[in-house]
Amino acid sequence: MVKNSEIDLGNRNTLMTGKNIAIVGATGAVGKALLRVIERRQFPLKQLRLLASSRSVGTSLPFYGEMIPIEVLSKESFKGIDIAFFSAGGSISEKFVPDAVSSGAIVVDNSSVFRMDPRVPLVIPEINGDDIQLHNGIIANPNCSTAIALMALYPLHQEFGLLRVIASTYQAVSGIGARGIEELETQVQALAEQKSCKPEVFLHQIAFNVLPHIDSFFENGYTREEMKFQNESQRIMHLPSFKASVTCVRVPVYRAHSLAIHAEFKKTLSLAKAQEVLMAAPGIDLIDDPSKGIYPMPIKVEELDQCHVGRLRLDHTSSHALSFWVCGDQLLKGAALNAVQIAELL
Amino acid sequence: MVKNSEIDLGNRNTLMTGKNIAIVGATGAVGKALLRVIERRQFPLKQLRLLASSRSVGTSLPFYGEMIPIEVLSKESFKGIDIAFFSAGGSISEKFVPDAVSSGAIVVDNSSVFRMDPRVPLVIPEINGDDIQLHNGIIANPNCSTAIALMALYPLHQEFGLLRVIASTYQAVSGIGARGIEELETQVQALAEQKSCKPEVFLHQIAFNVLPHIDSFFENGYTREEMKFQNESQRIMHLPSFKASVTCVRVPVYRAHSLAIHAEFKKTLSLAKAQEVLMAAPGIDLIDDPSKGIYPMPIKVEELDQCHVGRLRLDHTSSHALSFWVCGDQLLKGAALNAVQIAELL
Repeated sequence: MVKNSEIDLGNRNTLMTGKNIAIVGATGAVGKALLRVIERRQFPLKQLRLLASSRSVGTSLPFYGEMIPIEVLSKESFKGIDIAFFSAGGSISEKFVPDAVSSGAIVVDNSSVFRMDPRVPLVIPEINGDDIQLHNGIIANPNCSTAIALMALYPLHQEFGLLRVIASTYQAVSGIGARGIEELETQVQALAEQKSCKPEVFLHQIAFNVLPHIDSFFENGYTREEMKFQNESQRIMHLPSFKASVTCVRVPVYRAHSLAIHAEFKKTLSLAKAQEVLMAAPGIDLIDDPSKGIYPMPIKVEELDQCHVGRLRLDHTSSHALSFWVCGDQLLKGAALNAVQIAELL
Repeated sequence: MVKNSEIDLGNRNTLMTGKNIAIVGATGAVGKALLRVIERRQFPLKQLRLLASSRSVGTSLPFYGEMIPIEVLSKESFKGIDIAFFSAGGSISEKFVPDAVSSGAIVVDNSSVFRMDPRVPLVIPEINGDDIQLHNGIIANPNCSTAIALMALYPLHQEFGLLRVIASTYQAVSGIGARGIEELETQVQALAEQKSCKPEVFLHQIAFNVLPHIDSFFENGYTREEMKFQNESQRIMHLPSFKASVTCVRVPVYRAHSLAIHAEFKKTLSLAKAQEVLMAAPGIDLIDDPSKGIYPMPIKVEELDQCHVGRLRLDHTSSHALSFWVCGDQLLKGAALNAVQIAELL
């Protein structure tokens, strides 16, 4: 019987290097996805501690068939912890990541707080896994839509030399966590019953609507989310000259993001070579026979580790540009999967 | 009491120039929108004839508070008709437009059949209304997403000289007519009841999904809908050098289209001048105070004649580009309103 969340899981893993793991924000959408990814990939665990706010105390979460109780997050939560996953939002990361680091844990942080800090590597393992070695106790997990797009853009960059991206996103409600999923469900039901549909989590109705607004606005008219694409991509690809103009849009889809991408390169392109590059790239599948109705769709990548890329075509307005469409599970490659992949490299 | 659809409406209109009007495809989503627009704008009518397939015979549609019976479309339907609106799809236009023209009617055709025919003007009244004079019995109504985008692009073109557009669309299910609206409703209900959700009108599930597929595919990897944006815009703006690379995407929204547009111009841009141009332009409203949550959204333009433009910003990757977001009612400026505006010019 499990008495507290510090269960000994050593017997489930044959590896001697099992780690003591903490998940901050365990009850959120990303936190729950982290539990599933750790189970599924049989991450070598010794102990698991689930941390959340006092609201969640008394609840527990299933893991390897047992119920693990939630503990209240505090400065003392990280004693003996080797790796701490943070997925409870920026303010929690700001407040508690220093405690985790000073307790000796390595933090894999899913918030945007540390992503542009030059002392903190920002990592997609398939792209810049080696950067992990430069950590000073914190490794940042990239923005979800950026991570999904880069899975296709980076291999193309290696072949053709990426200059600029013009992109539009179709982002799922899970991007703001479990509350986003509940809000869409609630609104759809209210409208079906002819009831009023008051927005609570999003600023406006999201059911049967699209919102050109994710995160807060900068002076230049772009949102924080839109600028993350350029700024985080520069760091991940080691490509400071990279430019991106993005419009980020929330759509009434539950948990996978899609992006329409126009990408400009240094070299002249060949479609066959681009297809070859994408077929050989890790973490993505080329799903591309559009005249037969075969292309990536958000509902088809839900709960998949792989991102899907398709609608690949030479951009007919430029000899140096490709247009394509990419979908990925926001909670997996966009968050939990990438975080666990980082932990696997440690 | 109304005995047949050829009711005399002359007494409702003070103008002596009332026209005999026929609507082909009267029972469809665009047909019904045409009736509402004709009523609302008090289009000067003498007679109104509603035409549809034999499936609709025995049904009738409300108009100025009376029920107008549907007649079966035939080669003989256009005797005495001055203006015939066609909104029953390409194959019906191909078959019956020649009969209407040879009966002496002027056809305003909402299908894509005649749009690229050099003898047929393709018209948005606010942009190239004068082209109507060049008609040979047929005037084409443009593609819905193209028309909505051009309401913002054309005034900017006049000021700055348009070169190229990279755009992504967020298109409503009404784009394929009333069947699209029903399919989204049916799928949402089926999923709420945990039933299976079989696609019938769209190739894949549209509820809680997005589909990067509208119309059929060309060899170059673009869809017909995507190429219409460039090809129709060239004709409407009289700008054969204009280029556009577009990704057209169906989203689970009922009746208004949205587009994320990156537009490149000859001249260096000023944001203030672009705002001034858009505020003065006919048929669009600048809805643009994003930090207060004020921007165009599809649910806010439903049943509006005006298109909404916002999220206007100097593109930070180029000194000659603007990025913005535009929404418009697909059944109004995207179809019925533009068609009635054309008829008003006749």
